[in-house]
Amino acid sequence: MIEPQKIKSLFSIKWTHQLFCTQNAFRSGGEVTQILSELNPPKLMLVVDRGICDANIEYVAKITSWIETSSIECSDILIVQGGEKAKTNDSVVESILNAINELGMCRKSVVLAIGGGAMLDAVGFATSIAHRGIRLIKMPSTSLSACDSGVGVKNGINKYNKKNFIGVFDPPYAVINDYDLLLSLDDRHWFSGMSEVIKVALVKSPELFEQTKTTVSKVQNRDLISMAKLMTASATLHLKHIAEGGDPFERLEARPLDFGHWAAHKLEQMTNHELTHGEAVSIGLAIDLQCSVELGYLDQDVADEVISLLHEFNLPTTHPKMLEPELLDGLEEFREHLGGRLTILLLKDIGQPIDVHDLPESTIKRAIRRLFL
Amino acid sequence: MIEPQKIKSLFSIKWTHQLFCTQNAFRSGGEVTQILSELNPPKLMLVVDRGICDANIEYVAKITSWIETSSIECSDILIVQGGEKAKTNDSVVESILNAINELGMCRKSVVLAIGGGAMLDAVGFATSIAHRGIRLIKMPSTSLSACDSGVGVKNGINKYNKKNFIGVFDPPYAVINDYDLLLSLDDRHWFSGMSEVIKVALVKSPELFEQTKTTVSKVQNRDLISMAKLMTASATLHLKHIAEGGDPFERLEARPLDFGHWAAHKLEQMTNHELTHGEAVSIGLAIDLQCSVELGYLDQDVADEVISLLHEFNLPTTHPKMLEPELLDGLEEFREHLGGRLTILLLKDIGQPIDVHDLPESTIKRAIRRLFL
Repeated sequence: MIEPQKIKSLFSIKWTHQLFCTQNAFRSGGEVTQILSELNPPKLMLVVDRGICDANIEYVAKITSWIETSSIECSDILIVQGGEKAKTNDSVVESILNAINELGMCRKSVVLAIGGGAMLDAVGFATSIAHRGIRLIKMPSTSLSACDSGVGVKNGINKYNKKNFIGVFDPPYAVINDYDLLLSLDDRHWFSGMSEVIKVALVKSPELFEQTKTTVSKVQNRDLISMAKLMTASATLHLKHIAEGGDPFERLEARPLDFGHWAAHKLEQMTNHELTHGEAVSIGLAIDLQCSVELGYLDQDVADEVISLLHEFNLPTTHPKMLEPELLDGLEEFREHLGGRLTILLLKDIGQPIDVHDLPESTIKRAIRRLFL
Repeated sequence: MIEPQKIKSLFSIKWTHQLFCTQNAFRSGGEVTQILSELNPPKLMLVVDRGICDANIEYVAKITSWIETSSIECSDILIVQGGEKAKTNDSVVESILNAINELGMCRKSVVLAIGGGAMLDAVGFATSIAHRGIRLIKMPSTSLSACDSGVGVKNGINKYNKKNFIGVFDPPYAVINDYDLLLSLDDRHWFSGMSEVIKVALVKSPELFEQTKTTVSKVQNRDLISMAKLMTASATLHLKHIAEGGDPFERLEARPLDFGHWAAHKLEQMTNHELTHGEAVSIGLAIDLQCSVELGYLDQDVADEVISLLHEFNLPTTHPKMLEPELLDGLEEFREHLGGRLTILLLKDIGQPIDVHDLPESTIKRAIRRLFL
């Protein structure tokens, strides 16, 4: 008989996450050059979201001239699908894997991806699984990705009509927020990120909430410097939560950065992504703020103030699909994705979140009815 | 102008790796029950390598009766392709993902996979990417996986005809080496793992090398207790390297556990996996031992002693494909997969490895000619 034995090993992996907030990152001696000189990768691949090629030809020209003067072995720019379609199937992932294979890129090589959050999610998944991880530098090109997911440590694509069903946690080597990329956004996408700024302010920072309120007219007038300050503040809070929140790879129940997201993810799916993620989050925030009121945690005045602020940025807080019973399936899908007990963050006041483990259907329905008044 | 800013965050993730070495793990109160009681997963899926269903019906019966008495919500056994075919395309990965979706499994759920190394690699990749990681318990069913990769922290599948092109580093929740699984192996697969035992002994442990030499006849006579001791010793050295070697996710150049593997991986591919991984490793060890001799690092006597020991376990040290120039492509493919500078481990003596960064073609050719003498 073999004597049963247990061999237990403990080890840890250290990660460094670097976020650079700047303008004109491809300038001579700029952040792109700085980071790549430090890394000195054997090969480099630049991947650009088709949306940027269509809307911001000047920026693409800057990338092209940077490539011409760079001493790093670099392929032509690879242009891929942007928007949610980038992650609704595996075609972007496959095209990145094909290119990594064809170029013979190794683990020390670098992929630099410039695009919206969905495109960065898909490219990031491909680089995480090729050779068990090729270095990635992300450059979020939308307000939404620059202030939130684009700076984070998660990637993924949708499958089985479930958001982010496939993906991994894998910190990028660096993130560069080049705010010049925001200049070519249409108004809808310029404002879209403001819901994530307001979200993180509500959960983490009354100061950022005040700052957002005092900057309304500047953001409305597309003042890049004011917008950049909000983006950097939001991204910094996002990263601080990851690095100091004690749970960077989300093994525990609480998920404060997902405030309002159970309904947001479901509404995106129910509207076939006619709503941007930012718009869906705005509605999701409104629902969970009003649920916080209905359950007696939050003053109606505070909820109303936040809802008014969302409206200042052209963000919706209602949508006809909210009235369909299917919305409520979003709660269980949210629970299933995170695992374990349902944990929903509600608000007692700005900067004062509370986790609840039960959100009755009747409360949600009452909250939604109130939002339509 | 926006003032450039850099926000740097450092964080670390802790991992616990548990290896249980035992017999009859599905017994009442055994390791399977112990681990699952501790975890108390909302759902459990058991995946079994078809090879076990074909060769070891008694073991499958034990699993079935365990399921009947378990209080955990558990689906029927999912049977999947075993052997290298499990990872030459994504069909095993897809079938696991489909099942995870259909069963509505969340991150806190558990997949328990019982099979050979290739099947564990494919199932492990699927559990690593579903919901960004579902808990996995691995039960290696072959001598090869029980003493080496099956207890490790890597997973993956092949793509573009490149071994493990796709995969991630992701420690399993636990590994159970149930040595009863080895009883139904044919002689070829019983011996196959011995090349990895010898590999880790050569690199890490003169004691294990001595122990292996003194156990030859017992292993030849299929003595399970002696075999189990070698497997546990080898697996423990493997894990010790991961946990204490300072580089669990292989970010650095050196890769001592890959001794002999550049040629092994290439020969597996060149023979369409007619050679088992263990047999290919045996040949790969012989090549790199003889290269160590040719370059003046190692005594011919020591190389000959190891080669004789490999032969005692019916392991080959030559194959006609070694004479084809294509073999040499394996060096560059090995470098590309690991990244950075070529780093090949050679041997100065048993337990005394040395990293070299150049392995001339002429040396390899001379070594191969010598092996055929």
